[in-house]
Amino acid sequence: MKSFPNRYAVILCGGSGTRLWPLSRAQRPKQLLALNGDKTLLQQTALRLSQHVAPSKLFTVTHEDHKFEVKGQLAELFPEALENVLSEPCAKNTLPAVAWATFTIYQQDPDALIGVFASDHAIDNESAFLKAWESAELAAVQDYLVLLGIQSQEPATGYGYIKPSTTLALDAALPIHQVEQFIEKPDLVNAARFVSDGYLWNSGMFVFRARTFMRLLQQFQPAVYNQIITLTSENLNEIYPDLPSLSMDYGLAEPLAAASGLVAVVQAEMGWSDLGNWNSIFARHSKDAENNVTQGKVISLDTKNSFIWTDDLLVATLGLDNLAIIQTADAILVCDRGRVEDIKALVDKVKLRQPALTDIHQTVSRPWGAYTVLEDKPNFKIKRISVNPGASLSLQMHHHRSEHWVVVSGVATVINDGKEYILQKNQSTYIPQTHRHQLANNGTEILSIIEVQCGAYLGEDDIVRFDDAYGRK
Amino acid sequence: MKSFPNRYAVILCGGSGTRLWPLSRAQRPKQLLALNGDKTLLQQTALRLSQHVAPSKLFTVTHEDHKFEVKGQLAELFPEALENVLSEPCAKNTLPAVAWATFTIYQQDPDALIGVFASDHAIDNESAFLKAWESAELAAVQDYLVLLGIQSQEPATGYGYIKPSTTLALDAALPIHQVEQFIEKPDLVNAARFVSDGYLWNSGMFVFRARTFMRLLQQFQPAVYNQIITLTSENLNEIYPDLPSLSMDYGLAEPLAAASGLVAVVQAEMGWSDLGNWNSIFARHSKDAENNVTQGKVISLDTKNSFIWTDDLLVATLGLDNLAIIQTADAILVCDRGRVEDIKALVDKVKLRQPALTDIHQTVSRPWGAYTVLEDKPNFKIKRISVNPGASLSLQMHHHRSEHWVVVSGVATVINDGKEYILQKNQSTYIPQTHRHQLANNGTEILSIIEVQCGAYLGEDDIVRFDDAYGRK
Repeated sequence: MKSFPNRYAVILCGGSGTRLWPLSRAQRPKQLLALNGDKTLLQQTALRLSQHVAPSKLFTVTHEDHKFEVKGQLAELFPEALENVLSEPCAKNTLPAVAWATFTIYQQDPDALIGVFASDHAIDNESAFLKAWESAELAAVQDYLVLLGIQSQEPATGYGYIKPSTTLALDAALPIHQVEQFIEKPDLVNAARFVSDGYLWNSGMFVFRARTFMRLLQQFQPAVYNQIITLTSENLNEIYPDLPSLSMDYGLAEPLAAASGLVAVVQAEMGWSDLGNWNSIFARHSKDAENNVTQGKVISLDTKNSFIWTDDLLVATLGLDNLAIIQTADAILVCDRGRVEDIKALVDKVKLRQPALTDIHQTVSRPWGAYTVLEDKPNFKIKRISVNPGASLSLQMHHHRSEHWVVVSGVATVINDGKEYILQKNQSTYIPQTHRHQLANNGTEILSIIEVQCGAYLGEDDIVRFDDAYGRK
Repeated sequence: MKSFPNRYAVILCGGSGTRLWPLSRAQRPKQLLALNGDKTLLQQTALRLSQHVAPSKLFTVTHEDHKFEVKGQLAELFPEALENVLSEPCAKNTLPAVAWATFTIYQQDPDALIGVFASDHAIDNESAFLKAWESAELAAVQDYLVLLGIQSQEPATGYGYIKPSTTLALDAALPIHQVEQFIEKPDLVNAARFVSDGYLWNSGMFVFRARTFMRLLQQFQPAVYNQIITLTSENLNEIYPDLPSLSMDYGLAEPLAAASGLVAVVQAEMGWSDLGNWNSIFARHSKDAENNVTQGKVISLDTKNSFIWTDDLLVATLGLDNLAIIQTADAILVCDRGRVEDIKALVDKVKLRQPALTDIHQTVSRPWGAYTVLEDKPNFKIKRISVNPGASLSLQMHHHRSEHWVVVSGVATVINDGKEYILQKNQSTYIPQTHRHQLANNGTEILSIIEVQCGAYLGEDDIVRFDDAYGRK
């Protein structure tokens, strides 16, 4: 492997994917989910990149709303990557995110060789991926803006295509071509033609030198350039929202390809998928004898070609073909697998009528752990609350509700109206309304409590925070 | 209406219907469910019959397991019907149940005119039903065993058919025929022929004189007769299990029709349905513009001819046709509506692997009210417990678990290790393991508590009862 000590990677972790609803929600999008195994897609991405880049040189760009969750997931693998998490105050497509991360790196090292990767894709063949990245670097050091292109396998209509032209004479493991043209998601007829003509799928992965990128940004998007180079943590919330929403392709790669031959694409095969809808998840799981993919408690009779994913309920099916059935704690999707690309329209309808169901899960992540609403009825609400070792909730007060806490595992440290005390498993306490209180886990195992809230108003916004380890108001 | 002061009705409430799973369960079969409106099918049946018979003359035969639930449902309408609930120690088809109820009535009044009715059917046109019952009585007083036959509307293969012959010359509102033959559920070709030949559907409803029935029973089923006439509450558990499983049709009506002309059938139309599967429920509900029936939170796109019934989760559908989707708190059925008659095979499969899911609901009825398991995890379990006004749980003790109770509505009277105290809403108490304790509702509104159980073993069988208002051990 050729040594580039100034190698960096940028993980784009800003997606809000609705196409995997009800599993993905606005507050827990696809990249933060464990869709296969126990690692989330973000964690799988970080692990994959860490084979080629030092964890301290992993930069992650995410939305402010996901900051704690992203940091929590990275902390489990690479604590040294935490200080390089950039939180966007609002989503602005890929170009501003890449520009911000690149400028941050550029200030440390103008010669940095940067790879940019999505956080929510799957790659089966990691050594092929690493070979493609390394090949791309050979073109990047020649001042090319380089894409990783995927050898198209089938006339997919869900991907953009790249038309390659002249092959570059570089001593790379994989062929590298100049890019003649970018094509948006085509119809089926054109897609079939593109596959037979050897066009490549656009994976959205880029490799470039920091100084090359900054020069191109100044040339093709001078306004963005001028804003990015003035960004500081102080003015972020004023400047960032004014940036235009631009993709890397539309904002930089396409105009550059049109103006010069300085866009290149590596031609690779790596078992790549953007996991863009339920069918692409289905495609990557092993099937039973009737070509079904099932997860969880599923009992089926005369059911075939179906994808059945259940969280806690039993799903029993009879006489089905080609359906996707996805159950979460609060919603079930039942969908013809031929229609998975239309889920967005359904989710829009859900959002209109039941916005909580597209926004959050019943289990909600917090910087200190998570809570799950077990029952929400008039005058009372029951939550299971998990607090990570060493973590604490804010010192807080509620105007309208009292709380009963029962410790079911771990040890709780409670502050209640100025008094501090310990609760062991099978002990309980009562927090009257208006009492200042705080729950902390000073132990080494996860603290789990059952909270029964009583009151006429039980909204999450009835909270007055006096002191918060995570800077929340 | 002709006056028969010695008119009685017997409600057969022994069904264990699996064909409406997951809504119907062994411990809460169809007749105990409210499938339309707020009354259960049993309650609807009792109300319908009470238009023609005094509530004190309503007899109900049910399974021992359902006794408290049946009595609870009847108590809401006709407390005077409670003492006439007969509990079978085991299910023995319809003949033993009818024989037991008839013999019980016969001992009070040998001339009693008895109507026998299922507890889990729907009848739209109640006045037509009452007219048919009254017509049947005219033949019954002539010593006929009389069936209510339903004018067949379509070649249904799910019903038995009755071939009528000579019409009796009785001054009845509806035609009454002698019965020539009984035919079991036919295939489609035969069903079509039966409809065009004017055969009637066998509704399973009978009318007869008590003394007629006892005489016929002695003649055609002498062994059953001899056992039934010796039945007492003391020997019930020995004798009843030895009775043969026989239906009214096979055990009595068919041999009688073959031996004599003394079986009659009233020809009626009354909007009758046996609610035998999800399609018959579908047929009775009003449809939306795409011919869907929905209940609960349902959001659909391009979905038609489907039956979507949801308890608490949102069901979102896309691109479906002709499906039945039934969600309960612990199970979801997704089924081709063309296959609803095959649900039994699916339920058998579920029973094998997840027996609790065919047996009980997450909400379990008790003589004092009900409880719902909200979460069941290692080392803790959460229940919501509802106690009816005036009711109390047994004085009890657990070897392996402690309990934390939080009152969320109503007022609780608690006995805890010999001490009695009151808990209001938003108050809690702790029951350590091995403490004798009792929960009672001496108030006038329903008492609702949240119980958090802690312990290494949380099975329902860890209960030692010292004193129980309902005679349970």
